Amino acid sequence: MTALDEFKLIDFIKKHNTKPKKFHNVDLDIGDDCFVYNSSDKNKYVVTTDILIDNIHFRTDWATPEQIGQKAIEVNVSDIASMGTAKPLYAFISVGIPKNTSEKFIKNFFSSVKKTCDKYDIHLSGGDTVGAEALTISVTLIGIAYDKIITRTGAKKGDLIFVSGTFGDSGAGLEIMYNVQCTTYKNPFNFSTFRLLNRHERLLVQRHIVPKARLKLANELTKKSNITSMTDSSDGLFKSVELLAGNKGAVVNMEQIPVSKDLVKYCKNDLNKLYNFALFGGEEFELVFTADKQDYDKIKKFFKNIKCIGKITDNKKIKYLRNNKIRNIKYDGYKHF
Amino acid sequence: MTALDEFKLIDFIKKHNTKPKKFHNVDLDIGDDCFVYNSSDKNKYVVTTDILIDNIHFRTDWATPEQIGQKAIEVNVSDIASMGTAKPLYAFISVGIPKNTSEKFIKNFFSSVKKTCDKYDIHLSGGDTVGAEALTISVTLIGIAYDKIITRTGAKKGDLIFVSGTFGDSGAGLEIMYNVQCTTYKNPFNFSTFRLLNRHERLLVQRHIVPKARLKLANELTKKSNITSMTDSSDGLFKSVELLAGNKGAVVNMEQIPVSKDLVKYCKNDLNKLYNFALFGGEEFELVFTADKQDYDKIKKFFKNIKCIGKITDNKKIKYLRNNKIRNIKYDGYKHF
Repeated sequence: MTALDEFKLIDFIKKHNTKPKKFHNVDLDIGDDCFVYNSSDKNKYVVTTDILIDNIHFRTDWATPEQIGQKAIEVNVSDIASMGTAKPLYAFISVGIPKNTSEKFIKNFFSSVKKTCDKYDIHLSGGDTVGAEALTISVTLIGIAYDKIITRTGAKKGDLIFVSGTFGDSGAGLEIMYNVQCTTYKNPFNFSTFRLLNRHERLLVQRHIVPKARLKLANELTKKSNITSMTDSSDGLFKSVELLAGNKGAVVNMEQIPVSKDLVKYCKNDLNKLYNFALFGGEEFELVFTADKQDYDKIKKFFKNIKCIGKITDNKKIKYLRNNKIRNIKYDGYKHF
Repeated sequence: MTALDEFKLIDFIKKHNTKPKKFHNVDLDIGDDCFVYNSSDKNKYVVTTDILIDNIHFRTDWATPEQIGQKAIEVNVSDIASMGTAKPLYAFISVGIPKNTSEKFIKNFFSSVKKTCDKYDIHLSGGDTVGAEALTISVTLIGIAYDKIITRTGAKKGDLIFVSGTFGDSGAGLEIMYNVQCTTYKNPFNFSTFRLLNRHERLLVQRHIVPKARLKLANELTKKSNITSMTDSSDGLFKSVELLAGNKGAVVNMEQIPVSKDLVKYCKNDLNKLYNFALFGGEEFELVFTADKQDYDKIKKFFKNIKCIGKITDNKKIKYLRNNKIRNIKYDGYKHF
């Protein structure tokens, strides 16, 4: 355990921060997926920032500069998607670049950043490059919300918990790359080893390397139903449920958690492994949200791929149900379900 | 020359960027000290981002965590000051922290960031910490301008060039620390060696380690006079003059460039050294700006420490005058004046 592991920046800031003044026009302070302020005409601006470093959030020996550039934007768009009605507008990117980096790498990286920005109508608005030991990418996105902001904390007792997409693929993809790295030490994971993988393994790796934000889906969901709280699953589904349950509580039906055929194939019959990936995998950018139970039919009608996995309770516990048995799960490494 | 040295991010973005759409409400696109957008009520928001890395922009063995935290905010405030009427509102800070960093270091760093934010009424609004090889600090500041924006490109022929403060101290401070480092290799520059320095050397070091942004001065200047263009001297006075002269031209009276008594003392009679620090030192955050010559008396009356160092011409050249001789200077390392 290093000092950094124990240091919780957001808690530190929350505890020591000076209260915002009236002219700051703060709608939602630090601690959610985005910070929100408003202008005098009540336009709401949402802001998120993320830093990605080689060997931690991506690996330059495992991914192309195009994939790294795309991921840097997608993970930030995902934070803006989590606010429901918001759309990203401006991107600011600072990059620390190691000495031995080729010009081709740098150009391909920024071309991909630009292309990904274009996909979301984001205007690339500022940047800075400096020398660094390891490739370091810091992105700040500013977006605008034309309607109400969905926070992490709006869920009430009885609300249903919904998710978009499947869980665990990204974590499994990471494991696959590690395993290739370990078994072929002198020949690390790259595009020739990638070709040796099975089809389902390749798809899992792909989902880890190039995640996709659910911006359009989040915008449509909040237009067509009354979402009460929302976040993304960047730190894993387990963490997302914890955030939305807050000091209330939740019950999740593990059998309802959507998983891909590729993950099932990869985990074979090892259900422990499967649920570990699905709940704790992280680096996944699906929406996890709550809505009033009256909205269930509407959501199911308009959004075929949205699944209900549980509901909000008021007993201050987060319970996971499997085979009709209740389990209290706390994350402390690999879990047995 | 590495690929990074040759790669000019801002030029790359300018060349390849998609034109902003109407809903982006861009007032001033990438390439100035800040990017500027407006809300529908015409509030103007200014944004700047900077990345600082250990051993490049600061040294953890030469400065305290408090000083590093302060500098990270001040250099960004300086960009906002350069826009004239703007005030910073929100800070977002992402920090990559090496494993062996103590909790005390992290806490002192963030306490100082918070204290510096408070000084400028900036609300600390977001952040992210991750592990890293070298201490890496990325700051994005969002501010608001209640009046017109001063860009780098508004100067016209005949405008006078003004500067705040003195030049060269920060560069000399850096040299002093390097020299201490080189002469006492096993005992690098730190607070015990700091005490061995002369008073004027200590003051020069101090100006390098903890620069101060000229926010209040910039706000007052733009209120009381018609500033036509402005930037800060973060890349050295020579570069600032080049930016403001643009495709017009300028003439600078070298004898008028303000230098501190401490720098004069440090350079002794070596005027080459003195002008090298003053023009190319960088890591200094004074205002460099132009105003109509009719504003000369007003500026001199209200701002005792503002000096006029030259004027804008239209002959596409930047000329430096010394002893009534004209010199065309281009920066390519150490210069002889």
